[in-house]
Formats: sequence, structure tokens, C-alpha cells
Amino acid sequence: MRYRTRLERARGRMRDLGVDALCVSVGPDLPYLTGYTALPLERLTMLVVTLESDAVLVVPELEAPRVLERPDVFAMRPWSETEDPVRLVADRLRGADTVAVGDQTWARFVLALEATLPEARFVPANRVTAPLRVIKDAAEIGALQRAAEAVDDIVESMRERPFCGRSERDVAHEVVERMLDRGHERANFAIVASGPNGASPHHEPANRVMGPGDVVVCDFGGTMDGYCSDITRMYAVGTPAAEVRDDYEILTAAQEAAVQAATVGTPCAEVDAVARRVLAESGLDEYFVHRTGHGIGMEAHEDPYLVAGNAGPLEAGHVFSVEPGVYLPGRFGLRVEDIVVATEDGPRRLNAAPRDLAIVG
Amino acid sequence: MRYRTRLERARGRMRDLGVDALCVSVGPDLPYLTGYTALPLERLTMLVVTLESDAVLVVPELEAPRVLERPDVFAMRPWSETEDPVRLVADRLRGADTVAVGDQTWARFVLALEATLPEARFVPANRVTAPLRVIKDAAEIGALQRAAEAVDDIVESMRERPFCGRSERDVAHEVVERMLDRGHERANFAIVASGPNGASPHHEPANRVMGPGDVVVCDFGGTMDGYCSDITRMYAVGTPAAEVRDDYEILTAAQEAAVQAATVGTPCAEVDAVARRVLAESGLDEYFVHRTGHGIGMEAHEDPYLVAGNAGPLEAGHVFSVEPGVYLPGRFGLRVEDIVVATEDGPRRLNAAPRDLAIVG
Repeated sequence: MRYRTRLERARGRMRDLGVDALCVSVGPDLPYLTGYTALPLERLTMLVVTLESDAVLVVPELEAPRVLERPDVFAMRPWSETEDPVRLVADRLRGADTVAVGDQTWARFVLALEATLPEARFVPANRVTAPLRVIKDAAEIGALQRAAEAVDDIVESMRERPFCGRSERDVAHEVVERMLDRGHERANFAIVASGPNGASPHHEPANRVMGPGDVVVCDFGGTMDGYCSDITRMYAVGTPAAEVRDDYEILTAAQEAAVQAATVGTPCAEVDAVARRVLAESGLDEYFVHRTGHGIGMEAHEDPYLVAGNAGPLEAGHVFSVEPGVYLPGRFGLRVEDIVVATEDGPRRLNAAPRDLAIVG
Repeated sequence: MRYRTRLERARGRMRDLGVDALCVSVGPDLPYLTGYTALPLERLTMLVVTLESDAVLVVPELEAPRVLERPDVFAMRPWSETEDPVRLVADRLRGADTVAVGDQTWARFVLALEATLPEARFVPANRVTAPLRVIKDAAEIGALQRAAEAVDDIVESMRERPFCGRSERDVAHEVVERMLDRGHERANFAIVASGPNGASPHHEPANRVMGPGDVVVCDFGGTMDGYCSDITRMYAVGTPAAEVRDDYEILTAAQEAAVQAATVGTPCAEVDAVARRVLAESGLDEYFVHRTGHGIGMEAHEDPYLVAGNAGPLEAGHVFSVEPGVYLPGRFGLRVEDIVVATEDGPRRLNAAPRDLAIVG
């Protein structure tokens, strides 16, 4: 029923936008609409949704047994190794003027479809699907809550673990294994950025061995039952410098202010601005080089984005990260991040792990 | 030097094909040409290669510190959170008639580039890069060899592990952790398909608990130092049925014949046909529902494909899987897979783990 309803809502938006067909492949739109996730491989899997006919899932024959059939939602058209799947999709798009293509569909398939249907106009599918996916229902919020609780447990357990003498890569590896052990089907990333490496927000864990005085940014997330986790906490090897403690206190105040600002109706850009204003009081805003947050759901980053210029208001059911950071090149970095849901009763954090600077051995 | 040489060879092919600009993003073309791997996120990373100017890497500002700069290979153009990266790329493509776009580039960026440059013709970048990437040099073959040795160790160690009473998911989880422990930076997949589930070639490990008499397909691979592993071995819980042993003997003979047929100059399709002919002698060919193999390198599946219809001859330096299978719906599946390199001295397997049906507890 869930998928049938979503597909009908997608068709409603297609009508509103003048989109004749929706084609989704790898990425979250397909599982959102059907419960099935395509393998990100060179064999095309594509759901074709038109306004009048039943939806059809064009799928490699050898992957067809993975598909849980939902005859009330879509039919299946398995293709054999010597068939051309682009042709099979195009055959279902004859007469369509405007075709929406899933955002993460591989370029090779987009270009092949365009070449096969030169009269059609291709547009990004997020115009159709993003406004549906951005509002999470109770079941989705429950899934995000459970994923958040799993990473909460991990950040807490890491407080008891040694960092000194270990490489960033070693700690990152442990975090990945803990995510899998704690029920994630996939670890999406694990940033462990120590000392000066912390000043690189998306640092790739390296061979740097951590030692006394290092502050360490740990930012990790994965996918659990189809929904993503994402959390950042700070660790210090031994007693941190006074400057680190002072800056971190300001940063957590900025994060708290931004979380509290994330009420229904508030423009996304305003939440970003609130965090920046708190940091500006101490001149730290110039070291906050990224947006304040991103939506999260089946995708690690999705609408809504808490960024300057995004005037769109928060709505009940929006779920997003609030993660200001301070990055001092060549010295250290600080970030703190929670996942938050906007509700009619105000913002509610899904993460409950302690946010203080953890002192580790 | 390596990247500079590759970039020059790419420019040579661009000239031959009449391609004015090459734009690569997520996927293996970017690390192949620059050593840098883009994060698969909504912030665009794109290398723009033109014939006359220096290559430019358009990269999110907060990811710029991850990039190992190679001023002799490319310049960097970091973009801030409020800039439009598509515009930055398009500015570098003015006047280009034909633009090649990396195969796995997200549709949203392809469509945005097309909308920004309506006069340009967009073609898939694999026309430029696939013929370069398909021939592996000695360093690449060394990396693939080391990745193969890592998974060889794992399939051997799994022979000593219990399967009986464990779920497919539990064994798959163990295999993933062993890949990470054995030096893979990423596990790409781990298929554990037992009993009737084995008849689904790309089965997703499930809660099915394995018991006596089950035969189990274990097919897994990951990425180690940028190059992929991929191996399939068979396990039997207790003594397998005579039919299973007989069919598996035929299958291993088919695989051996296909490996031996994979000599330089042999058409890819012929290697596929050899495996099929051996199976046909016993009427098993109708249960072999996929191609015999795929190329492997920085990508899990890439050129050359050993499939009916691919008349292209094998060349020295081609590296590919040879993995015939037999799938009896509702009953069981069998597959055996090695990675093979074509050399002037004949085919050479990179995997050395025993290929017999392992009896496990």
C-alpha cells in the first residue's frame, strides 16, 4: 500500500509539472517508489512510470530473482544478456514529450536514452520526487531514529577506547565494523581527522598516528534498514589546550542555537545564519567553511539544505543534520552534528549521545 | 609521471575521435587520470580536460584539502557553498562542439550541463577512456594480484569456519569484515547464496539459516589500493548430493576450458562459447543464464566483457573474470570464478585458492 500510494503521488506531481514519464535507476528514488534497490553496475535497471500505463521495472534477468514482485505496484521486464535494455526502456517512452530521469542515473544511460529519443525533453527526476521524499512519515522517522540510536551507541563506546598510538585509519576501521555489528547494512563513510587533519572537513583517514594533545573529529554514518545515520563527535587525546576547549564551547552553543532555530516555518537559510551569528560573536565564523546542514533520509545528503540562499521554510517531517564546524588550517578542526526532525511541537534531536569533548587515552 | 602520461594518451584519443573536452566525475576515470577519487555526493567534483589548456579539477572547497595536488597534471578550482559548479565547468567548455562525459556522472549534472550548453554534443567518455583503461600495465596487474591474494586467503580461511546453523547474512558479514581486515579499503559486495537461493546469481544474503545438504555460493569482492577483487567458491554443508558433485565437476571443467581458451587474439565471445559448449555436452548450458565474464580493474565490472556478440579479441594486459555458473531454479546454484590476465605467454590466473567443493560443518 505504501508503494502504491507513493507512486500515485508521484503521478500527481508528474501531471502538475507536465512530465509524461519518470525513469528511475540507481539511487534512492527506486527503493522509495518500489522497495527495490538497483545494483550500481553496468547492467541497466530502470523503473518506467507513465501516467496511464502500469509502471514497469526493466531489470537484468540474473537480478530478477532479487526483486520482490509487487504486481499492484509494477510489472517486471527482465532482459537477457544479449538484449538492449535502453531499447526496452525507450519502447515504453514513445510519444512522451517530457521524461524525468533519476538524479543518480549513470550518464551513459542518459546519453543513450537521449540518442534513442531525440524528440524528447529530459529533466531531472528530483522535480517530481524530492518534494515527496522530503516529508518523512512516522515509519521513516522511526527508521531514522533507530539508525541514530545505533551511532549514538558507537560514539559512546568510542569514549572508552584508546586513540593514542593508533592511526586514524585504524580507528575508522573500528568504527566501520561497529556500524555493521550494530545493524547497519552499509557503512557510508567514517571520517577520523586528528590534529591538523581535522581542519579538512572531509578528510580521508590516513596513517597519521594520534598522540597527546590531538583533538579528533569523528564523523560517520551508514545505512540501516534503508535509512541513513550521520553523527559527529569530538575526542581529545589527554587534556586539550584551553583554546580548543573555548572554541568548542562556542561551537556547541552555535549548534544548540541552530537546532533551536529549526522550527516549522523558519527559512532553511535562517538556521544556517543563526549558527554563523553565534560564531561571529567570537570571530570564528570565518573558519566555518561549509553549510550548516543537509537533509537525510534514504540518501545521506538530500533536501532540505540548510545553506545561505535557500529561502524555503522548514516543514513538519523535514529531517536534517545541524553540524556547524570550525577549521583552523594547519592546526585543528572542530565539528558537532546531530540529526534533527522539525515537528509542530518544535525541533527534536534524533541523536542523544553526549556532546561534550570526550577525553580519551 | 603516470598520470601525466595517461592524460596525454587521453588527449590523443580525444583528437582521434574529434572530442574537444572530456569531463569526468564520480567513477574510476577520475582516479585513473589524476589519482583522486570524487565523493559520490550532491556537490559536484569534475575534471575538465581540453586539448589545449591545462586540465582543471572543479572541486567543493571543503573537499579541496583531500586532493593531492599535481600541478603538472591538473590545476584546482575549489568552489564555495554559494557558487554554481555547473557554471564553473561550463565556462571551461565554451566553444567545445563535442564533450565526453564520464559514464557514471550523475544525470542531474549531465542534464544541467546540457541545459547550460545547448549547442554542444555530449557523448560517453568511455569512448575515450575505456581503450586506455582496458590494457593494464605491470603496476596495475600487481595491484590486482595483491587484491586476488587477499580474497584467496579469505576463501581458504572460510573452509575452516562453520556454516551450519548460521544465516547467509551472518556469513556475508564475516566475509566483509575479513576483506577489510585483509587490506581492502572497501567491500563492494558479498553474496552468500545457500540452497535454492543459490539459483539467483545476484542473491542478496538473507536470514535463511544453512543446514546439512546445502550448497552455498560465496561470491565477494572489494577494492584494495584502488583495484578490485572478485572471487567465487562453493561450499557444501556436510556431504553434498551426487548430482551436485557431478554438476560441479562439469562446471569446473567448463571454467578450466574457458580459462585456457582466453589467449591473446581470441574473440571475447569465443571464450564465452567455450564454457557454454562444455556445459552443453551434459545439457547444463540452458541453466547458465549469464555471460562468462567481465573485465576488472579500478571498476568491479568494466571492459572487456566475455559475452556472446563481443567479437573483440583479447589483448595482452586484459584482466577479466571467468565465471560460468549453473542455476537450477528452486533447487541450487553453482558458480566458480577466477580473475585471469591475458599475456603473450597465455592466460594466467591471479587467484590460486583451491577450486574444489569445500565440505564445511
